[in-house]
Amino acid sequence: MPKLVDHEKQKQLLAEATWRIIRRHGMEQASVRHIAEEAGISVGSLRHYFATQSELFAYSMQLVSERVDERISSLPLSGPPLEDMKKVLCQLLPMDEDTRSEMEVWIAFTTKALADSSLKAQSDQVFEKMRLGINSIIESLVELELAVPDLDVDLETARLHSLIDGLAMHAVIRPDSMTPDRLEELVTHHLDSLCTL
Amino acid sequence: MPKLVDHEKQKQLLAEATWRIIRRHGMEQASVRHIAEEAGISVGSLRHYFATQSELFAYSMQLVSERVDERISSLPLSGPPLEDMKKVLCQLLPMDEDTRSEMEVWIAFTTKALADSSLKAQSDQVFEKMRLGINSIIESLVELELAVPDLDVDLETARLHSLIDGLAMHAVIRPDSMTPDRLEELVTHHLDSLCTL
Repeated sequence: MPKLVDHEKQKQLLAEATWRIIRRHGMEQASVRHIAEEAGISVGSLRHYFATQSELFAYSMQLVSERVDERISSLPLSGPPLEDMKKVLCQLLPMDEDTRSEMEVWIAFTTKALADSSLKAQSDQVFEKMRLGINSIIESLVELELAVPDLDVDLETARLHSLIDGLAMHAVIRPDSMTPDRLEELVTHHLDSLCTL
Repeated sequence: MPKLVDHEKQKQLLAEATWRIIRRHGMEQASVRHIAEEAGISVGSLRHYFATQSELFAYSMQLVSERVDERISSLPLSGPPLEDMKKVLCQLLPMDEDTRSEMEVWIAFTTKALADSSLKAQSDQVFEKMRLGINSIIESLVELELAVPDLDVDLETARLHSLIDGLAMHAVIRPDSMTPDRLEELVTHHLDSLCTL
């Protein structure tokens, strides 16, 4: 089905054009006209793929989340469990130019979703997926008997989830001080603090 | 000097109109025209107080930070040190409608500052002030001999600062699950985890 594949490919190219505009000029400049221009197609052609700006934004937001999923799925996870958990958590942080770009766009969408109900469902869905992923890491610590006694799974899920999003935000705002090495050190330190060493 | 006082008061009213527009309609709608309309004055009059939109935004961002400072300065701090530290940290989180509004606007400005260099200096300055405040809390834990042995002050400052910003973000995105009580519980739990109990 080459037609369908092309259709999906074109949607991804438009989402990536949306990301570039948001990163370079901010959400205020991410009009359908600017995005079509950036992608090198007409507004009419863009409308063929996305009838509204909201549809394009929802798809662009979804694509960030899919890219993160793909990276996590393709991780070689075979080390000690704690090492594997650190690797997964680091995929949720801006560790290189690509992931930094994803996180910047992600923060812009999340902020926009606060005042734009058409993005809220998408934003809530990804938030919940991330919460569940982090919850399963905390549960694994308990099941594998790595965790300190009486660990409160819900509380530690909320704490780690908030910490990861805060670290992602700080790495985007302050890339000079919040380097990939520093991010890894902080994630390692936090996980270790939940474990009997 | 009634004239000067009025001038400052009017600037604050314009900043508050800016906050309301950002919360209700998002940063994209925060044009000078919309803000003047919301404040009930003409664009020409607004220009008398702020020559550019950037000036208005920088002032509005600064005012959020000043409000937080004022609240912290007026706290009755006389309890056990750890209780006082919790009180201060909770002022950095959305605990009621006013602070929730401040944090929403703050996140919108911080996001905008990523792609708008005219806001970057202001954003960096407040980030650094908050980092120093959190740093002094961690240092106090050590000086008062409350902290666990060999606490890494820099690392714990970065962790707590990221956690606080992540919690603020989650409380704004998910007010139903990240309630004031839950925020306080998480801050308490985190501080306790840094101390010998």
